[in-house]
Amino acid sequence: MSQLTHFDDAGASRMVDVGEKPITSRMARAEGFVTMLPDTLRLIQNKEVAKGDVFEVARLAGIMATKQTDKLIPLCHSLGLDSAQVDFEIIDESKIRIESTVSVQGRTGVEMEAMTAVSVAALTIYDMCKAVDRAMSIGPIQLLEKMGGKSGHFRRQETASDEGT
Amino acid sequence: MSQLTHFDDAGASRMVDVGEKPITSRMARAEGFVTMLPDTLRLIQNKEVAKGDVFEVARLAGIMATKQTDKLIPLCHSLGLDSAQVDFEIIDESKIRIESTVSVQGRTGVEMEAMTAVSVAALTIYDMCKAVDRAMSIGPIQLLEKMGGKSGHFRRQETASDEGT
Amino acid sequence: MSQLTHFDDAGASRMVDVGEKPITSRMARAEGFVTMLPDTLRLIQNKEVAKGDVFEVARLAGIMATKQTDKLIPLCHSLGLDSAQVDFEIIDESKIRIESTVSVQGRTGVEMEAMTAVSVAALTIYDMCKAVDRAMSIGPIQLLEKMGGKSGHFRRQETASDEGT
Amino acid sequence: MSQLTHFDDAGASRMVDVGEKPITSRMARAEGFVTMLPDTLRLIQNKEVAKGDVFEVARLAGIMATKQTDKLIPLCHSLGLDSAQVDFEIIDESKIRIESTVSVQGRTGVEMEAMTAVSVAALTIYDMCKAVDRAMSIGPIQLLEKMGGKSGHFRRQETASDEGT
Amino acid sequence: MSQLTHFDDAGASRMVDVGEKPITSRMARAEGFVTMLPDTLRLIQNKEVAKGDVFEVARLAGIMATKQTDKLIPLCHSLGLDSAQVDFEIIDESKIRIESTVSVQGRTGVEMEAMTAVSVAALTIYDMCKAVDRAMSIGPIQLLEKMGGKSGHFRRQETASDEGT
Amino acid sequence: MSQLTHFDDAGASRMVDVGEKPITSRMARAEGFVTMLPDTLRLIQNKEVAKGDVFEVARLAGIMATKQTDKLIPLCHSLGLDSAQVDFEIIDESKIRIESTVSVQGRTGVEMEAMTAVSVAALTIYDMCKAVDRAMSIGPIQLLEKMGGKSGHFRRQETASDEGT
Repeated sequence: MSQLTHFDDAGASRMVDVGEKPITSRMARAEGFVTMLPDTLRLIQNKEVAKGDVFEVARLAGIMATKQTDKLIPLCHSLGLDSAQVDFEIIDESKIRIESTVSVQGRTGVEMEAMTAVSVAALTIYDMCKAVDRAMSIGPIQLLEKMGGKSGHFRRQETASDEGT
Repeated sequence: MSQLTHFDDAGASRMVDVGEKPITSRMARAEGFVTMLPDTLRLIQNKEVAKGDVFEVARLAGIMATKQTDKLIPLCHSLGLDSAQVDFEIIDESKIRIESTVSVQGRTGVEMEAMTAVSVAALTIYDMCKAVDRAMSIGPIQLLEKMGGKSGHFRRQETASDEGT
Repeated sequence: MSQLTHFDDAGASRMVDVGEKPITSRMARAEGFVTMLPDTLRLIQNKEVAKGDVFEVARLAGIMATKQTDKLIPLCHSLGLDSAQVDFEIIDESKIRIESTVSVQGRTGVEMEAMTAVSVAALTIYDMCKAVDRAMSIGPIQLLEKMGGKSGHFRRQETASDEGT
Repeated sequence: MSQLTHFDDAGASRMVDVGEKPITSRMARAEGFVTMLPDTLRLIQNKEVAKGDVFEVARLAGIMATKQTDKLIPLCHSLGLDSAQVDFEIIDESKIRIESTVSVQGRTGVEMEAMTAVSVAALTIYDMCKAVDRAMSIGPIQLLEKMGGKSGHFRRQETASDEGT
Repeated sequence: MSQLTHFDDAGASRMVDVGEKPITSRMARAEGFVTMLPDTLRLIQNKEVAKGDVFEVARLAGIMATKQTDKLIPLCHSLGLDSAQVDFEIIDESKIRIESTVSVQGRTGVEMEAMTAVSVAALTIYDMCKAVDRAMSIGPIQLLEKMGGKSGHFRRQETASDEGT
Repeated sequence: MSQLTHFDDAGASRMVDVGEKPITSRMARAEGFVTMLPDTLRLIQNKEVAKGDVFEVARLAGIMATKQTDKLIPLCHSLGLDSAQVDFEIIDESKIRIESTVSVQGRTGVEMEAMTAVSVAALTIYDMCKAVDRAMSIGPIQLLEKMGGKSGHFRRQETASDEGT
């Protein structure tokens, strides 16, 4: 099994050197779930029919978080993303699914940006609904797909547990 | 059921006015889980025995994230925290539990700071181990306890599903 | 006429000492205008009727900018706001009016937070529409009202020129 | 008339994908105005002759703001600018003109960086003089020129209203 | 000798709890030195006589850095400073002395804000002169004075080595 | 002797235009020292043997600071670094030496990122030990080496004073 590359031989953490890697097109997709009371989800949906849109606030929070990822994750490289997208889907009466897609042409992948987008979008949903439902739960948050770079194409094998059930 | 307070009557999002609220001692605790391959967790543990410590990097990331919460969550108030703490526990051969505790004397609660600390600590663990285990999964992330403020003392009712199993 | 307080006697810039000032309730309101082609404004309105809402994106940008004001304006104090609100009004076929209201209980006023909210909301409208109307114009941006603190209640005298016409 | 590209077909906001665009040399120039009492402008000029320089503070604020633009404007791409410049000109006894020029070699334009530089420089002038002249007014802020990219060379047609008079 | 309070009993880093401490007036002063070639210092002085002022840029960088201190120093509390000031003095033909003074009314001291202001002002001088003098040296940087809080009044004992000679 | 390039002919500060420069591999190394009481250094060392590791906190602070350099140093360009590394060495019973190495493929050098990494790592050591030793001193901080770019290879000439003795 390979090593944890964020540590050098002496065990010191470092920002891994990507200078030798070629610039390639890279993409990552991640997903996350938020589970809540059916009443809370109805409130979100009704609001949306009206005008206050929880999803639009969470979407922007998620997109903006992709631009802060390198400030949040200590050993993560700074990247100027080509695109960032966050979408929402109501899975059942108590569960929202969030999916993010980000891309870049760079020397390192954008998994962390995709994972961070989903996490911050989920936290924002929590923030906007916590006054009515403090027991909401976030997760699982996981990588769905990753393209570009020498590690090749990763595609998550879907299992029941991956869907948060 | 009460309304989503982050929207006004016309449905416009806003930072809720907390100016009338008294300054009180407030505390929040949150938890989160990271699930991975047993080999990955062994690698983290071995590293820790050595010198490179995944948990220490994730801990600092989580603590520092409490100071960025208002920049990440669009309608969240800015607060100068009194304390922030992030701890790790190995639950079983494939699962890490993260717990955060934050406190403030202010006009609004610190649930989002506690939830964000756990989320960013989990993302950092993911970042440091993703090269060896891309399918790691984060969650559930949930509020454990909240004290102070007029909504009173909240304590999460533990159920099997809350433990991520 | 009084002096520019951001400079000391030797002409050096500084963050003015507010330590002697009492903590009082403070509020500021500012307004700004964005002028565009009637076709552009129609596009914003149609989008709004549909689902993509330029105003909601600009509103969040404005609210979030209040939390970055101290990082943007060099000699501005850091404040934890009690509330922040940004609203939009369509004045005529080519003009949008933005109004912000912010409040705090602190030792210094929040004019800059209110002015920054309006400015960044206007810039965000420009960003979202620039592909179809590069000649859009922002302004006038001005303080409408300020309450609290020893300088007392300021209320802008409305004149024709204040409305951007 | 074309669409608002920051929304997808379902109306969801997104960071537009620029991955297919070639890297080209891009430049943008913007201008803005600050109108104040003649006494206030005299104070700025006298200070400048002395040592405390309102323009130098505002200039640095404007330049530094170009590096924060992606954090302020929600759907704006992150760019590493090649250059940024902010200049001031006294137009008449009550009006300052600010001009910014920024450049990059990238996949997307720098209009927002130029517009943000001017806006933040104007806000900084307001901040430094507000104690003596709360009724100062900012604007119009507008794009003067844009070069590079497939939309070609844009040059603002000057009209009387563009000069803020 | 007392313990390193930033670690708990198990050795985990944390943001120390200051919630029990009373809010008191606190002040800190720090100093730092930059040593360079006499030709470089002459260039700075000549520029100042003209219009481009290295000290004014460095001063603003130092003041603004006080507002970023909690983002830079992992376990540092967020504080809303009452005042911040940075001054420069030419000690001899090759040495600049920088002094910062900051104050707050809070539960914890502002030594780190004062030390950070001096450090970033020094780095900015280095940045602006490095093209002509890469071998410039920064330091010593040290705390001069600290008032407020239960640890009482600290005043640095001046020795020859404190002056960087 | 050449000019201070951060000012234009009129003395106005600016972000220097690097658009004409080719993209090349660039590297910079810097060093800094922290001097303290022997008792303080023993405390750091003991802690390290145990579990709380001052160096690991300072190392992460230094690495993360390289990603904030453009926000701290007003006229510094934004760069996406390829690598960043910070190391510590105990020189004698009262002195720690810090060394940073950063690299990028870009149009401008990374001296400031290397110098900032060392400075912030040193400030973090100060922060963690200040409760037991307020008189600690930081410096000298200086550039050791710089490669890439048209100014060629710079290598600091070591002298006794460079080692902080």
